[in-house]
Amino acid sequence: MHVTIEKAEAAIQQAIAKAKELNTYMCIAVVDSGADLKAFYRMDDAWVGSIDISIKKAKTAVFFGMPTGEIGKLSQPGGPLFGIEHSNGGLITFPGGLPIVDADGVMMGAIGVSGSSVDNDHAVATAGMKALGTADLPDHPWRT
Amino acid sequence: MHVTIEKAEAAIQQAIAKAKELNTYMCIAVVDSGADLKAFYRMDDAWVGSIDISIKKAKTAVFFGMPTGEIGKLSQPGGPLFGIEHSNGGLITFPGGLPIVDADGVMMGAIGVSGSSVDNDHAVATAGMKALGTADLPDHPWRT
Amino acid sequence: MHVTIEKAEAAIQQAIAKAKELNTYMCIAVVDSGADLKAFYRMDDAWVGSIDISIKKAKTAVFFGMPTGEIGKLSQPGGPLFGIEHSNGGLITFPGGLPIVDADGVMMGAIGVSGSSVDNDHAVATAGMKALGTADLPDHPWRT
Amino acid sequence: MHVTIEKAEAAIQQAIAKAKELNTYMCIAVVDSGADLKAFYRMDDAWVGSIDISIKKAKTAVFFGMPTGEIGKLSQPGGPLFGIEHSNGGLITFPGGLPIVDADGVMMGAIGVSGSSVDNDHAVATAGMKALGTADLPDHPWRT
Repeated sequence: MHVTIEKAEAAIQQAIAKAKELNTYMCIAVVDSGADLKAFYRMDDAWVGSIDISIKKAKTAVFFGMPTGEIGKLSQPGGPLFGIEHSNGGLITFPGGLPIVDADGVMMGAIGVSGSSVDNDHAVATAGMKALGTADLPDHPWRT
Repeated sequence: MHVTIEKAEAAIQQAIAKAKELNTYMCIAVVDSGADLKAFYRMDDAWVGSIDISIKKAKTAVFFGMPTGEIGKLSQPGGPLFGIEHSNGGLITFPGGLPIVDADGVMMGAIGVSGSSVDNDHAVATAGMKALGTADLPDHPWRT
Repeated sequence: MHVTIEKAEAAIQQAIAKAKELNTYMCIAVVDSGADLKAFYRMDDAWVGSIDISIKKAKTAVFFGMPTGEIGKLSQPGGPLFGIEHSNGGLITFPGGLPIVDADGVMMGAIGVSGSSVDNDHAVATAGMKALGTADLPDHPWRT
Repeated sequence: MHVTIEKAEAAIQQAIAKAKELNTYMCIAVVDSGADLKAFYRMDDAWVGSIDISIKKAKTAVFFGMPTGEIGKLSQPGGPLFGIEHSNGGLITFPGGLPIVDADGVMMGAIGVSGSSVDNDHAVATAGMKALGTADLPDHPWRT
C-alpha cells in the first residue's frame, strides 16, 4: 500500500504548520512504501544541505520500518550496526525520519524532515506522520 | 534569484491541471537557480522511473539555461555535444525540462516533467513555466 | 546572491597570502550560494587529497550556513548529527570551511581550505572570508 | 612533470582573454599530469552545467594524451571506442579539452573549457594551451 499524493500533501501541510509554530525553516520529504519520493517541499530559507538529508531520512525510515533515531542508537561505534550508513546509497540515522503506518498496521511510506535541531526535526516529522496514522509497526507479519 | 516556494507551488499547480487535462500521470520537479530541488510532486500512478527523470530534466534546464530538448538536438551521434549526458551526475536531454525566467530576464529556476510522451511532458512543463514567466533567456548578460 | 569571480579571486588572494605566511601548501576552493564551484587554486606541493576536501568543506559551509567545524562538534559518536557526513555526496565536518556573508546578511557563498593542520586550514579560510565579509549569518530571515 | 600553479594561471589568463574576445562566458579548468585539478575559474554568467564539463574535458585529455574531440570521433555508435564515456567516472569526448605538452615532449597537464559552442570552447582551450606549449605529444616514449 503506497501513500497517495493526497495523503502525502496532508502530511506535509501538518509538518509545515508545526515548522512555522517552531519558527523553523524545513525541508520535508515523503516517500512511499517502496522508498521512492512522492512529494517534497523546501521552505524558503531552509538549508540547501537539508534537501538530501530529509529525503535520506524518509528513505531510511522505510528501509527498516522504524524511526531513523532508533537505527542511530545501534550504529554507534561498537554497536551492532556500526557503519550501516554506508549502505543503500547513504543513510541518515539521527532523528527526523518516521515510518507512516495506517490503522491496519500497513506501512504506507515515511516522512523525513531536516532543517533545525534534531529535536525540532523530529517534532515536525511527528506532526506530519500523525496526520496520517502512527509510526509504530505491528510485529511481523506487516506488509508494505 | 532563487524561485520561492510559493512560486514553485503555483507552477506545480498549473502543471497538474494540464496533466489532468491530458489524462496523464506525471512527476513534476522544480529546482532553484542553483539546480537544487525546491518542490516535487508525483501524481498517483505515475511511473516510479519518472521521479529521477523529472528532477534531472529540471536540473539540466538550469545547468545550461535552455529547454532540455534543445540540448538533445545537439547530443545525437555525430552531433557536437554527443555524450554530454555523462556530465553533472547524469543529464536528461529530451523534452520536458524548461528554464523559468522572470520579467527582468533573470533565471529563477526550472521545471522538469516526466510520465508520458515527450510531447505531453513538454506541454505540462510549459503550463507550469508559464505560471511564472517565460523560458526564453535574453542575450547575455543574464543572471541567476 | 552569488559571489562574483572578482570577489572569489580576492578571497583566494588573501588566503594564499596567509598560507605563505604560515609556510603551508593549500588547496583553496570558493563556491557560490548554490554550492557550485566558482574558483579553485592548488598551490604547488599541496596534497592531492586536499583537492576534494577543500571543495567539500566549501560546499558543506554553504549547505548549512555555518563553519564546518561547528557541524563536526555535533556529528561525533553519540552526538545529535552522527553520520551526517554521508549526505550530499559526502561532507567534511572539521574546520577549514566558512560561509561568506555580506554586509546585508546575505550568504554569497563559502570558502574551503585544506592542506595543513585544521588550525592552519581554518586560519587560511578566515583570511579569505574576511576579504569579502563575515562568516556570521544573522538570525532568520537570511537569504542566499 | 606536473604543471605549476604559475603556469596554470598563465594558461587561464590567456583563455579568459580569448573568451572575452569571443563574447563568451566560460568555465576553465586546468589539471596536472595526474588528471588532478590544479586551477579552476568560472566567469560570471557561465553555465553552471559547464563546471563539471570543463573539468571532465581536462581530465579526459590527460587520461589519453589527446584532444577530447579525437576521442569523440572514435566513440560514436559503431566506432571502436563506443561507450568509453562510461569509464573513469564519466568522460566528455567532444572538443574543448587539450593536453598541454612542453618543449621536451612531456605532458604537464591539460586544459578543459566549456560554456559556448564547441568551436568556441576549442578556441578558448587552444589559447590557454598555447600559453604553455603544444597539444601534440611525440610518439612513445612520452612521460608525464
